[in-house]
Amino acid sequence: MSARKHLKLGNMITGAGHTWSEWRHPQAQPGASTNFKFYSKRAQILERGKFDFAFIADSVSINEKSSPHYLNRFEPLTILSALAAVTEHLGLVATVTATYTEPFNLARQLASLDHISGGRAGWNVVTSWLEGSAANFGRQEHLAHDVRYRLAAEYLDVVQGLWDSWEDDAFVYDKETGVFFNPEKLNTLGHKGEFLSVKGPLNIARSAQGQPVIFQAGSSDDGRSFAAKHADAIFVGGEDLAEARAYYADVKSRAAGFGRDPDNLFILPSASPIVGGTEAQAHALWEERANLASIESALSMLGRGFNDHDFSAYDLDAPFPDVFGHGINSSQSATVKILAAVKAENLTLRQVARRFAAPKGAFVGTPEQIAGQFEHWFTSRASDGFVLIESLPGQIEAFVDHVIPVLQQRGLFKTEYAGATFRENLGLEVPPNRFTVRKAAASVAA
Amino acid sequence: MSARKHLKLGNMITGAGHTWSEWRHPQAQPGASTNFKFYSKRAQILERGKFDFAFIADSVSINEKSSPHYLNRFEPLTILSALAAVTEHLGLVATVTATYTEPFNLARQLASLDHISGGRAGWNVVTSWLEGSAANFGRQEHLAHDVRYRLAAEYLDVVQGLWDSWEDDAFVYDKETGVFFNPEKLNTLGHKGEFLSVKGPLNIARSAQGQPVIFQAGSSDDGRSFAAKHADAIFVGGEDLAEARAYYADVKSRAAGFGRDPDNLFILPSASPIVGGTEAQAHALWEERANLASIESALSMLGRGFNDHDFSAYDLDAPFPDVFGHGINSSQSATVKILAAVKAENLTLRQVARRFAAPKGAFVGTPEQIAGQFEHWFTSRASDGFVLIESLPGQIEAFVDHVIPVLQQRGLFKTEYAGATFRENLGLEVPPNRFTVRKAAASVAA
Repeated sequence: MSARKHLKLGNMITGAGHTWSEWRHPQAQPGASTNFKFYSKRAQILERGKFDFAFIADSVSINEKSSPHYLNRFEPLTILSALAAVTEHLGLVATVTATYTEPFNLARQLASLDHISGGRAGWNVVTSWLEGSAANFGRQEHLAHDVRYRLAAEYLDVVQGLWDSWEDDAFVYDKETGVFFNPEKLNTLGHKGEFLSVKGPLNIARSAQGQPVIFQAGSSDDGRSFAAKHADAIFVGGEDLAEARAYYADVKSRAAGFGRDPDNLFILPSASPIVGGTEAQAHALWEERANLASIESALSMLGRGFNDHDFSAYDLDAPFPDVFGHGINSSQSATVKILAAVKAENLTLRQVARRFAAPKGAFVGTPEQIAGQFEHWFTSRASDGFVLIESLPGQIEAFVDHVIPVLQQRGLFKTEYAGATFRENLGLEVPPNRFTVRKAAASVAA
Repeated sequence: MSARKHLKLGNMITGAGHTWSEWRHPQAQPGASTNFKFYSKRAQILERGKFDFAFIADSVSINEKSSPHYLNRFEPLTILSALAAVTEHLGLVATVTATYTEPFNLARQLASLDHISGGRAGWNVVTSWLEGSAANFGRQEHLAHDVRYRLAAEYLDVVQGLWDSWEDDAFVYDKETGVFFNPEKLNTLGHKGEFLSVKGPLNIARSAQGQPVIFQAGSSDDGRSFAAKHADAIFVGGEDLAEARAYYADVKSRAAGFGRDPDNLFILPSASPIVGGTEAQAHALWEERANLASIESALSMLGRGFNDHDFSAYDLDAPFPDVFGHGINSSQSATVKILAAVKAENLTLRQVARRFAAPKGAFVGTPEQIAGQFEHWFTSRASDGFVLIESLPGQIEAFVDHVIPVLQQRGLFKTEYAGATFRENLGLEVPPNRFTVRKAAASVAA
């Protein structure tokens, strides 16, 4: 059975709202980003809706211009470990930077989350695009974009190698003879590469799903190749349908080029649906949301893509300033897109801020309309599912209660979890242990 | 009220047993070190017994000779985050090495655990005494003993400084005006020291208890001074009463020398009580436990104190070999003690292994006898409480059900938690925010 039978659905839990100024909504809880009850309740709502996973974004650098949910927030691996204790089926995907985390520690913590949750961990591999991060980690300068992807590839290989330290039948537990484990099944990685030197072995075994599921979020050329080669799922910005289809076709063909079954790589755009009882109600909610945002907050959001560049000093209605040098080593693909639009349409700063800091991929309408839009994206191969970002307080609950049943009726979404682990629920195989495979090959050759 | 009114009690949860070969016991679960249900059940038993905290030990390096619970185990910050979700009052103390963790990441994860738990986090500051650790973190060599303590002091100062990034009234959440926070209450540490360069600010606020509680476990001269100056609690090996009293007097007087109230620094030896319905039953259980251990496992335990030195090749009944060079940069105080005993008594390797790899501080007897021993240690100022290490399966439950009530009847242990946070339950004040204090001082001076 193809793993692509159903839509894959996740929710990025942010607490204080993702973009603009959602925290200003009368029902919003501005302190939710460090409120465990909020996260715990949300995770249980997602599980009720048979969501595949909760997703936690991250950043390791803030300043006065950072958007609210980044200023004061749970760290992903700790909050997901806590959520593991209050859920049974939900995948738990942590964003963690390869640039600023010791691979031994990260491999351990992800494996530990994977055990705590009974095999439901995922890792969104990022390389930290804010230059401010370096100063929090005693580094002189942030790594260049292409170097960061070379590092990420080596890093991922090291982490996955550490995860295989113990072969699956390593622990013997023979109480009679006193043999706790079989030393032949304990493998020392001994990695020495361009960036990293990590000996191993790791002090934790493989989990019920073998290894955590790998997410990636890059959309630059380097990022697409990295994801097509290594990722199980890709989280991308929700753009228009034509763009999404082009991206989808490109990345799936790259995956095939690496010898992979493209159906086992899930492309998941972000979506911030706004569900209303009627279409008019839904559009009224969209207006309500848009009206929460100030131009100042839009400028701050925009600035994030340009290494936290401060746009507040510029004339809002003059042509967009020449700041593209700031973006090249930061969030590359986003700034390239802005550059193209500015050139083509001669946009002002205000126009750019409104358009590019606006909530992405909003699906607005009745439950049937939103289900129809999701179906269209799925069947026209623009996506394999979506990562939902809450548009307004109560909208994730509304999606679970009203859109999910329509998707289920149409056969687009599962009505029960397939199994206990994240990989089982996604329809992915348990990855073999690299050392077991190597030994089997050597034994055949001999 | 003195914070020393009651015994402070914690439990080091290890899963597969701490020393010797407890996993070989018929009721032992050898895989418990990665079994969340085991940890979750234990945490709830501790809370039923009004224990102050659960404690998770750690290591970042294993080899074939490592003792069972180190080989395959949860990582402390992730398992404690999960336990936070299933407990309400229990303190959650994570051992994390300052030598091999980025201070920004550690400060965040501890603060995140502190928020998830509603103010119940603790950090046992260690500096990693196994030289094998360096190779897992791309380092050429392990730092020397005195350098590690200099690093630890700087590291702790950085982490505590990051924790104060946000002053307590920083978040305004004014929905009307759109002001999320007051930028004057956001502080950038800007640390540049001998070992570390960390700018800040941290992306998480202070918790309900202000900052996590600080534990320390060193017993060398450097370790004692570090703990006396910086720690809220010290976890030490459980030795004989006279030794414990001398240690206690020394460390408390060092604390007073640093201008601290010695009663606000808790000295907590380890203890592995064995409770029986009668004294004879308890001693039979002690024998049962001792008989589980093989000489091989005792040699492995012993080797850990000497940088994982392999003792298996030596003659067991010849005089103890000259291997003291291995211990100097590893677990210094333990090896110095062994050296003294070998010189004084001309011990063989077998004798040293049996004596020094034996379970420490065993209190064996009826509930009344054990309560009496604890009382004696407490009133004679040998300890302010204990960190229990499970001696045999079921013994923590037995302690909770039979010893705790006796301690409570004698007024030595609380019958209810004093409050919601770990600091409240320990009787410790919320530490002031260093930036708020500094600004207040500057304002008075001006």
